[in-house]
Amino acid sequence: MKNKKYNFVIDVDGVMTTGQFIYSEKGKVYKIFGPHDSDGLKMIKNKVNIVFITADKRGFPITKKRIVDDMGYPLHLVTEQERYNYIKEKFGFENTIFMGDGIFDAPILKECKFGIAPKNARKEAIEAADFVTPSRGAEGAVCDACIEIKRRFLENEKL
Amino acid sequence: MKNKKYNFVIDVDGVMTTGQFIYSEKGKVYKIFGPHDSDGLKMIKNKVNIVFITADKRGFPITKKRIVDDMGYPLHLVTEQERYNYIKEKFGFENTIFMGDGIFDAPILKECKFGIAPKNARKEAIEAADFVTPSRGAEGAVCDACIEIKRRFLENEKL
Amino acid sequence: MKNKKYNFVIDVDGVMTTGQFIYSEKGKVYKIFGPHDSDGLKMIKNKVNIVFITADKRGFPITKKRIVDDMGYPLHLVTEQERYNYIKEKFGFENTIFMGDGIFDAPILKECKFGIAPKNARKEAIEAADFVTPSRGAEGAVCDACIEIKRRFLENEKL
Amino acid sequence: MKNKKYNFVIDVDGVMTTGQFIYSEKGKVYKIFGPHDSDGLKMIKNKVNIVFITADKRGFPITKKRIVDDMGYPLHLVTEQERYNYIKEKFGFENTIFMGDGIFDAPILKECKFGIAPKNARKEAIEAADFVTPSRGAEGAVCDACIEIKRRFLENEKL
Repeated sequence: MKNKKYNFVIDVDGVMTTGQFIYSEKGKVYKIFGPHDSDGLKMIKNKVNIVFITADKRGFPITKKRIVDDMGYPLHLVTEQERYNYIKEKFGFENTIFMGDGIFDAPILKECKFGIAPKNARKEAIEAADFVTPSRGAEGAVCDACIEIKRRFLENEKL
Repeated sequence: MKNKKYNFVIDVDGVMTTGQFIYSEKGKVYKIFGPHDSDGLKMIKNKVNIVFITADKRGFPITKKRIVDDMGYPLHLVTEQERYNYIKEKFGFENTIFMGDGIFDAPILKECKFGIAPKNARKEAIEAADFVTPSRGAEGAVCDACIEIKRRFLENEKL
Repeated sequence: MKNKKYNFVIDVDGVMTTGQFIYSEKGKVYKIFGPHDSDGLKMIKNKVNIVFITADKRGFPITKKRIVDDMGYPLHLVTEQERYNYIKEKFGFENTIFMGDGIFDAPILKECKFGIAPKNARKEAIEAADFVTPSRGAEGAVCDACIEIKRRFLENEKL
Repeated sequence: MKNKKYNFVIDVDGVMTTGQFIYSEKGKVYKIFGPHDSDGLKMIKNKVNIVFITADKRGFPITKKRIVDDMGYPLHLVTEQERYNYIKEKFGFENTIFMGDGIFDAPILKECKFGIAPKNARKEAIEAADFVTPSRGAEGAVCDACIEIKRRFLENEKL
């Protein structure tokens, strides 16, 4: 960890997923994750501290299965209201790259080192971001983000 | 309730969902709900009386799980044929904002205080509406609607 | 039945559905049906003989559940190779309106009274059709078709 | 097999599917396959050696069910890192047509006889391909590819 200068904090829903919830009469049962993102993250994970956050308490077991069990990254449950302070206190904004798609993500996208919004983000997030990915969430948006992070911050670093 | 001047009556299918039904050989088992709508509704729920209606009897347990159990809003089963009179008698059109996407919704969208159609609505609903959301159903259409309602009707009210 | 001049023969997959199959390790388990189509069919069903066909043997129980059990229309399993002769012999082309989206549907779309392709159809079907719906399959394509049939063939008939 | 001059090697995810994974709390449970591809493959399978590859170990039982059990084609599990050498050694590039959508597919698309990328492929694959299909994965991309292969390589052959 000590040689990882940057943190990459990623909101899950709408960024790693389509943002949609498939419901049965028993509740929220499925989420839709996309291709390429796992490949993109592998490209930068040795140089960047990758952390996922989610505000979705009910869908947490689904998200945990994908992010923690299958992909091997840390995941924290943080409400949208607490998100700004959580990132500020835990990581600081100076060396943190943040990717999010919602209204509550806009102030974080503005404050952090580099703010990334997926193409499908709310207008408020798009306007606050430094970079908007050409792909939508669950269609390669996080892969796009990783390529941009590599190009912009890691080119002179040994990977 | 007494200080809530406006009603916001929302049709579920095609507005809160993609309008699609995922079928197995056992029948209609899933619906696809989207992001941001819950956040949008929270922004206005203290000032607006929010009520959901649906004509989908077979999918009612799925809809109820999402709208009533998980989100906490009232939901009424009303056929498309009864919908116009139901809203007229229960809420009146004068202070009712209505959001719907179907052919049967067009006359209600015309009569009510403010008619909203999601981007994916039938042409008949689009033409009858006062406002068409930039997002599709299950992609933030109800969040768009809430922001527009806030801007247009609630700016001078304390929220 | 005797006063029904026209037959409306509808291919299910890609017309009433997105054309996609959701697979688990146990096989083809779900299909995605769309909104508005049931409303559209109700508008014309007293004047037009509505029949569904499908070439999907493995997904037949799913299709049957939606079309026969839940919507109440007849459904026949006909292979794509047999389809042309099946329609010719069972209904004749003279008073048959056909809606299909595939390569094998093109010759039927050309021969029948009025050929309809959904927006998402294969190029071969689009080119052979008399009318292409503004909506895609499972997004209202059959509702579009019913409105066009009503306008073009049933306006002078009492519905 | 001896009269089959060409191999057609097809990556499954993002080509035969949308590339997306539907997750429950138990893991990757569904993939979305599309229409027309099976029809397209039938058009060329007597003249072309059709082989599927996938790097998705966790989703392998789902992929196997569709490709091997239901469609009857061979399927091999090959990691993305091994893919280039696997194709080179097993089939050679000279008479191999390859279709893939990912970053790791780009060098294979460049080297092989004829490289095909679906419309939804990563930019790197699009740029390396000789032909980009008008349809997306799970919306007919493989059918498009088969029609192009037939037109370009099989027109003078008896099918």
